[in-house]
This record gives sequence, C-alpha cells and structure tokens, in this order.
Amino acid sequence: MKREKEKIKIIPLGGINEIGKNLTAFEYKEDIIVIDCGLKFPDEDMFGIDIVIPDISYLIKNKDKVKGIFLTHAHEDHIGALPYVLKQLNVPVYGTKLTLGIVETKLKEHGLLSSVELIRINPKDIIKLDSMSVEFIKTNHSIADSVAIAIHTPIGVVIHTGDFKVDYTPIDGEIIDLARFAELGKKGVLMLLADSTNVERPGYTMSESTVGKTFENIFSTAKGRILVATFASNIHRLQQIITAAAKHNRKVAVSGRSMENIVTVALELGYLEFEKETLISVDAINKYPPENVVIITTGSQGEPMSALSRISNNDHKKISIIPGDLVIISASPIPGNEKLISKVINQLFKKGAEVIYESLADVHVSGHACQEELKLMHALVKPKYFMPVHGEYRHLKQHAELAIKMGLPQNNVIIVDNGDIIEVSKDTLRKNGSVTSGNVFVDGLGVGDVGNIVLRDRKHLSQDGILTVVVTIEKESSSVIAGPDLISRGFVYVRESEDLMEQAKEIVKQVLKECEDKGITDWATLKSKIKDGLRVYLYEKTKRKPMILPIIMEI
Amino acid sequence: MKREKEKIKIIPLGGINEIGKNLTAFEYKEDIIVIDCGLKFPDEDMFGIDIVIPDISYLIKNKDKVKGIFLTHAHEDHIGALPYVLKQLNVPVYGTKLTLGIVETKLKEHGLLSSVELIRINPKDIIKLDSMSVEFIKTNHSIADSVAIAIHTPIGVVIHTGDFKVDYTPIDGEIIDLARFAELGKKGVLMLLADSTNVERPGYTMSESTVGKTFENIFSTAKGRILVATFASNIHRLQQIITAAAKHNRKVAVSGRSMENIVTVALELGYLEFEKETLISVDAINKYPPENVVIITTGSQGEPMSALSRISNNDHKKISIIPGDLVIISASPIPGNEKLISKVINQLFKKGAEVIYESLADVHVSGHACQEELKLMHALVKPKYFMPVHGEYRHLKQHAELAIKMGLPQNNVIIVDNGDIIEVSKDTLRKNGSVTSGNVFVDGLGVGDVGNIVLRDRKHLSQDGILTVVVTIEKESSSVIAGPDLISRGFVYVRESEDLMEQAKEIVKQVLKECEDKGITDWATLKSKIKDGLRVYLYEKTKRKPMILPIIMEI
Repeated sequence: MKREKEKIKIIPLGGINEIGKNLTAFEYKEDIIVIDCGLKFPDEDMFGIDIVIPDISYLIKNKDKVKGIFLTHAHEDHIGALPYVLKQLNVPVYGTKLTLGIVETKLKEHGLLSSVELIRINPKDIIKLDSMSVEFIKTNHSIADSVAIAIHTPIGVVIHTGDFKVDYTPIDGEIIDLARFAELGKKGVLMLLADSTNVERPGYTMSESTVGKTFENIFSTAKGRILVATFASNIHRLQQIITAAAKHNRKVAVSGRSMENIVTVALELGYLEFEKETLISVDAINKYPPENVVIITTGSQGEPMSALSRISNNDHKKISIIPGDLVIISASPIPGNEKLISKVINQLFKKGAEVIYESLADVHVSGHACQEELKLMHALVKPKYFMPVHGEYRHLKQHAELAIKMGLPQNNVIIVDNGDIIEVSKDTLRKNGSVTSGNVFVDGLGVGDVGNIVLRDRKHLSQDGILTVVVTIEKESSSVIAGPDLISRGFVYVRESEDLMEQAKEIVKQVLKECEDKGITDWATLKSKIKDGLRVYLYEKTKRKPMILPIIMEI
Repeated sequence: MKREKEKIKIIPLGGINEIGKNLTAFEYKEDIIVIDCGLKFPDEDMFGIDIVIPDISYLIKNKDKVKGIFLTHAHEDHIGALPYVLKQLNVPVYGTKLTLGIVETKLKEHGLLSSVELIRINPKDIIKLDSMSVEFIKTNHSIADSVAIAIHTPIGVVIHTGDFKVDYTPIDGEIIDLARFAELGKKGVLMLLADSTNVERPGYTMSESTVGKTFENIFSTAKGRILVATFASNIHRLQQIITAAAKHNRKVAVSGRSMENIVTVALELGYLEFEKETLISVDAINKYPPENVVIITTGSQGEPMSALSRISNNDHKKISIIPGDLVIISASPIPGNEKLISKVINQLFKKGAEVIYESLADVHVSGHACQEELKLMHALVKPKYFMPVHGEYRHLKQHAELAIKMGLPQNNVIIVDNGDIIEVSKDTLRKNGSVTSGNVFVDGLGVGDVGNIVLRDRKHLSQDGILTVVVTIEKESSSVIAGPDLISRGFVYVRESEDLMEQAKEIVKQVLKECEDKGITDWATLKSKIKDGLRVYLYEKTKRKPMILPIIMEI
C-alpha cells in the first residue's frame, strides 16, 4: 500500500456541538486509541436523568483494535464515563499521576479498580503502539497534571490539546510545554484539534496566581470565619486557599464528599503542601475562634445537595452560618446554573454572611485559553489541517474562523459533528461517512434504558400531569361492571375541581354506553375514544393537556 | 389624632426577593394606592405553570379603600397581572400614553377593555385623592414613557423610582427629570423606594444611543439581510434599528406577535417615526434584494415558540435563513435563558448566518441604573428613610449598604419581604406584622387552582414517571376478579424491562393474597401495602422512585 493513500481516521463520539462528554477515537491501520472518556450533565429537558455518556457502539464493534484510553486530565467531562465504558470495553487507561489518582477513587466506588489496568505516564513520555505512538505534552488548566496528546503516525503528527490555557505563573511552577509544541510545529504537524471553550473571549485568561492575590487581600482583612466554595478538582485553587489561610493563622476544614476525596488523593500524591496541623476536621471548627477558621466546601454551582447549599439552608449537620461569616464563591456559573447559585447567595446573605462572588471580586479565573492564547497555539503548531473541538457549534465556527484568519486555507479547516468519520491523509482532509453516536442516559442503575419515549412522557407529565381512567367491563356483554373511576395526579386540585371531574366522568360514561350499544369490544378503539372525548373536553375547560391513561379491566 | 402618630403603610405584595411580579400598596388613612401590577415568569421548578401573579387577598379585603393602580411603565413585570387583578378589583388604572396603549392591547385580548377605566397621565401631573396626591416624574428606562411616582401625604413625601436609569442622550430627547427629584429632595423626602436590579454593577449604564452607533457601524458594512431580535417593548431600540435601516436603504419587516402589536401601538401613538414606505410586510421581503432588507423579530431570549427560534429551526412560515444573513441579538440573557439562547445561536450559525450578540459587540444596554446612577438618585432625593425594591435579597442587601455608605443611619434603612407591613411616620420606620402574600399560579385557564401539591406531583412525575397498578376485587370475598395490571409511563421502556414488570406484578399478587388471607377489606391499607412493596423492590432494582398509583375497583 502506498503511503500517500494511507489515512488516519478521527471519530469524535462526544464533545462536538456540546460542552462535555468528550471522547475522540483515532484510528490508524489496526490501532484505535481513545482520547478522554467524559460525561455530560443533563439538559433541563432530560427529566430525571443523572448523567449522559457517549454511545460507544463503534468502539465495541472494533474492540480488538482499541489499544487504550488516554486521558488528558481528571475533570468529569473527560473521565466521568470511564466506569460505564470500561464495563463494556476493558482496555488500559493511561494518565498522569493525579489524573489516575482521581480515576482510582472513581473506579473504587464502582467496584472496578481491580479489573482495570491503569498505566501512569509523565509529560514527555511516549507510548509506542503497533502503528503509532502517543506522546504526552504538559499543559496548564484548572486542574493539575493536565496534558495534551500528540499522536505520531508514519503519515504525520496529530495533536489534540485537551483543555488548556497558557499560565506563565502557574502554582506548581510548570508552564505549558510551549517549546515542545513549537518543536513539533517546526518539524511539521499534520493536524491540530484544539479546545474552543473560550474562543469568544478576546485577550488572555488570567493566571491562576492572580486569584491567590485576591485571597491574600481578602484573608488579610477578614474578621470572622471564611468559607470558600470552589471546584473540588482545582487543586491549585485549594493550595492557594490553604496557603493564604496558614499565613493568616487560620486552620482549614474541608466539607463535601468530592472535596474530601480529592484532598485525600492530592495529599497522598503530594499535590498539596502545607503544615500537617493546618488541616482540621469539620467537627473541630468550633474549637477555634472564628478568625482562625477557613472552611473549603463544594457547591460553587449552587447544586442543591452540595455542602454550601445545605449550609445556606441551615440543613448541614456540622456547619451553620454565623453572622460575620464571609463566604467566597470562587467559581463562575456554568450556563444553566445561574439561578441555583443566586438562590444560595440570597440565603447566605439572609443568614447574615457577607458573600463575595465573581462579579464583585477576582475570585476566579477560567481554565481555558482565550483568543490570544489560541492564536499562540496555532502559531506554534502551524498545523496543515485544523479541527476545532470542545464547544458548541458557535464556538467551533468561531475557532475555525480564527484559524482561517491566521492563514489556514478554508479547505484545510473542518467543522464536524459527533459520529463523523474524518479521514486525514498527507494531503487530504475530508468527512467520509459516520458511525453510531449520541447520548446514553444514566438514570439510577439504568444505563441506556431511558430513551426518547420515556423522556417525552416525563416531559408531558411534568407539564399537566396525568388523568387515569379505569373501568371494569364484562367481556361477553361489553357491559360496565365497575367504574369508570377517574384519578388525577399533577393536573388539578381535585377538591376545587369536583365539577370538572364529574363532567369528565359523564363523558367517559357516554363513550362507554355508545360502545356498548354498538357492541364494540375492541378495547384499543374504546380507549382511543375515551382519550379523544376527554382531551377535547379538558382542553376546552382548562386549556391544559394532561396525559390521559385509559385502563380497561376485562372480566 | 395627632400628626406625629399618623402613619403611611407600605405593603409590597411582589417584587421583593424576586425579579418580577412588582406590586406595592401604599395606604394612608382611607386611601390605598397600588403601584404596578406585574407578573413573573415561572421558575424551572414550577412545572407547567404559564405565569405567576401576586396574591392580592389584602387588596380585595380592603376593596373600598383602593383608589387606583398607578403604572410606572409597560413591561410585563409591571403590568402583566392587570387582566387577572382587574377581574377581582375593578379600579381605575393610571399610566402614561404609551403605557396605557400597551395595556389596552392586553385588556382587549382578555375582553376587559370596555369595563376598565384607563386614565392617561403625563409626567408632572398630580392626581389628588382624599388623603394624598400622586405625582408622576419622568424617568429613563428600556421602554419609552416610564415614570417614577411621588406620593404626597400630610406627613411627608414617599418616592418610588420604578425601574429607571439615567440617560443623558435618550432617543426621545427627554432626560429623566433630575431637577424634580432634586427639588423634592431639597424640600425633604420622607422615604425612597428604589430599583435595585443593577446594584451589583459599578459605574454607569451606557446610554441607549450607544447601541444606535453599533447598529450604524454594522449596517454600513453588512452585505446581506439583517435580522435583529430584541425586546418588543424597547421602542427606542426599534426606532434606532429603523433609522439605521432607512439610512442604508433597507426596508424593515416585523415578525412575532408581540412585536407586531407594539409596533402598531407605537405607530398609532406617535412613538415611532419613519417614512411610511420603510415598513414592509413580511410577505414582501423576498421582493427586495437581501442588502435592502431588515427583519425585526421577537425571540431575543431564545423562547422556543418565538419568531427567531422558529426561524433558526426552519420552522417559520415566511422567513428562513439564507447564507449571508446577519443576525443581531440585541439583548442580554435573562438569568435562566442562557441555554435557550445558545441553542438558537448555534442553529443560526449552522444555517449559514453570521450572528452578533452581546459578548461580541455593544448591541445592548441595560435599562437599569448601575451604582453611580443609584448614588445620584440617593444624593438628589436625600430621603430620611430608604427601602430597596425590585431585586433578590442579594440586591436589596447591597442597595441597603450603598445607602448606608452614603450617610443614612442603619436604622433608617429597611429590608423587607413581600407581605410585610412597613409603617412610616414622620420619625419612625418599622415593620408591623404582615398580610397574606405569595405566588398565584396561572396555568391555562386556571388561576390559582394549581398549588403546591399539584406542583410536587408534577415534579415527582417528571423525575421517574408513574406506575399505575389496577386490580378488580370482589367486595364480599376480597378475592381478585381481574388484574393486577401494571401500566407505567415515563418510568422504564417496558419492552426492555419485562422481567422487572413481571416481578413487580408478582409482588402485588403476593400482597393481594396476604390481604385476602387475612381478610383485609380496608382498601386504604391494601393500597399502602402495594405501594410499600413496590417502592422497595423498584428502588432496589433501579434506584428510581416512580410515583406508584394503586387503584382498586370494587364489584
């Protein structure tokens, strides 16, 4: 086979036209590697769904080719689907120390730890597979130990940035490995896939260390307790909080399950540094005067079951707000969470706390590259082809335009969808068909057993409730033995709507009588007549459309 | 009675600790006046609710005292509850020309126009009631013809700003009447109630005319059609779009019911000025080349049924996107709408349109005063007492702090809740009890017939659906004649869960048998045993909690 005709297939199964659920397959000859394996949190119209994971039918069909899952970092939208995917596809998982530390905790919870091979890598490591090799490149992001991935094949190098920003003063001192990106760029990079999350923002993302300065300012003047809510996984943020606390003679307690887990892992692996006695148990906070206490909690997104939300509602077992508390919400609202966060802020203010949040002070920075950082990446890597990833269509489109403005020919930039097969050769880039892809819903213990019909029903039920009509009919004579009984839930107050329900019952009786008179014993027809009669009547009287569920008991 | 003991009662029935539903009662001796009568759009946990209006039990109880409803401006959160409130409380409604023009359209739709007395007022007008008089003061806001209200009583003047901003270069040339606020302030104002919406934002809100400059820039270079989505009621915005269009030889078509209504009213009343032939029908847009067309539409909040949303989904009868279209979303997302708007933007980009929105260009300004404007208002009015209104608790709290920073003693500032009775005398300010207040839900034709139980049921149904269990039992013998039948909706795919449903049926059969054996004929007990048995089993198997509805047919 001629080299010229050889192709790399890139198949994103998540993370395109959406925020989250990141998973991309790279296929070359007999090897498939998977970059990331993330979940997505449900949209508001996915009623009752806990999480959403990618459909990996394609990988299962090509099981034997899949050589491993390569993780860029330990955020849920990059590792959260692992427990579900690994049950169907047991392949080695590659990641940096902290990434695997957090993955371990997750697999332990799902009883999977002993059955999965976890392979720890370091930035600069290169894993050799049959037909390609996989290189890890240090990046900066809002979680420590993030990497980009370069895939080396005989026909060229493909770079996937993962989530990244450029931080010249990172907390761990390790700047994104710009030199390596430049070196690869100089040698020639066939294709770049890059993070599009912040492409709408001009300029640069501020350094994580600027947040530390804000903490320092706040901590130096605060008189009472300080509570800081942030993302559990942002270990550098935690480090800065703890450093500021220690400097101002404050002990630190940690609240919230995910926060406790991450702190444990980060401590074990050496990602947090402080004097042992700085950390105290939540049970001990009342032993210290308020001015010597900092509490780090989960709940920066206003999640109703989180520690901060419970604290704000006086619903936390061990922590309640005392007037004079200062609460810092060290995060930005993820779109859709604004109202939840606002609710928590209002409650905290009502309880007598001061609350500082992003619109009032610089208590948060993003983990994603803004326009100038993206341009830097493009300028260093100088890829032949470019495919924007990690974003909704608006982000992908604008990232594509940014690449074109920087000199790439329009035909060398491709905007794709999940499931598309993108074929790259030395001198061609094109879509060539697609594979099965989409959302798999996890609801309780069920994975994929809730589909569109169930969701449509839940939506319908949520709007106008349900009216159940039951009648017992004698098979032979079609005559009504018992009922009709009408029972509603989520429709109207029955007590205030007796007339309505009585009249509805009369309508059902009429339908039943007609059917009996006509000798109709086809229950499907009868049910549909009951539905129609009730639907028209109820809509006329209430302008509502409850689900109508006729049940016929035959004796 | 001595003057010193005389009191004004201020009773907010909406607009406190919430955005929307503004309605405040002012009571002095035998007069009650009501300022504004607004609705609120439902929170996401108010399943199936169309709109939320204030509980006005207190006003109905004191019907004879209520002298009128005084409107500050024609936004839905200030006039939207009128059709419902006026049905229970037919009092005169006072408002400026445009405000009443828009109210008329609304009352016409509800068949109420002929039965309500609408009294048109102008800024500077004073309406004399028995014990007080009501003065209107010109303000600026994101709708024309907005006013603040000053209530003159023998014990002092109370000013309610309504929604306002300070615009030194407004489109209609009429700056907020700062002189009158200053004059009243100089004479002495007993109490100020002021808009808190933007209290978290430092600086000044930009003038509406800055948006016109952005339009001018965009229109002067655009090559294809231009679509602008904005709030229908922002007539100055519409004027600026039309002016820019006319200047660049573009015809203007209007799409969306509320937009068409408002344009009609504004034209009739002289609030929009342009050459007649500028306006064309939506049916005529294809007669003109793309570079000569502007379409103004509703849907700037991504509302699923709005014109822009339909256009973005190829679901609009008369308008579809053609590549090269430029869409301007001239609005900010109202918290909670971010995802809906993002969906529309993504769809528009996919269809080949360019999309400009707030984060990319200055295509919107707020209608509310930022910190410096609020300080100006406080400095001019110099009230003895202050009560922040129009905002969530966080906003009220920060507005209170702003007033204190400006010199008001802490005890002269009061943060209240809806339903509180605030008593103001010449030298006292205090809460003294409360009246009934709260949310009345409008769902279809029902006003107030959906309460917390119905909402709780809808929420439950939306999460895990419903499992109905029906059984026909012979009364005498307690023996089962037909069933049990299990029917689920929104719970699981029945086809994929046959075992689960079979097993569930077995559990019901066991319960029935036990009850028959024990001779239990108390159906309530039987139902509760069925519920318990199924709940435990289903949760164990699925970690879900569907609503369980056992129905027993007795023959």
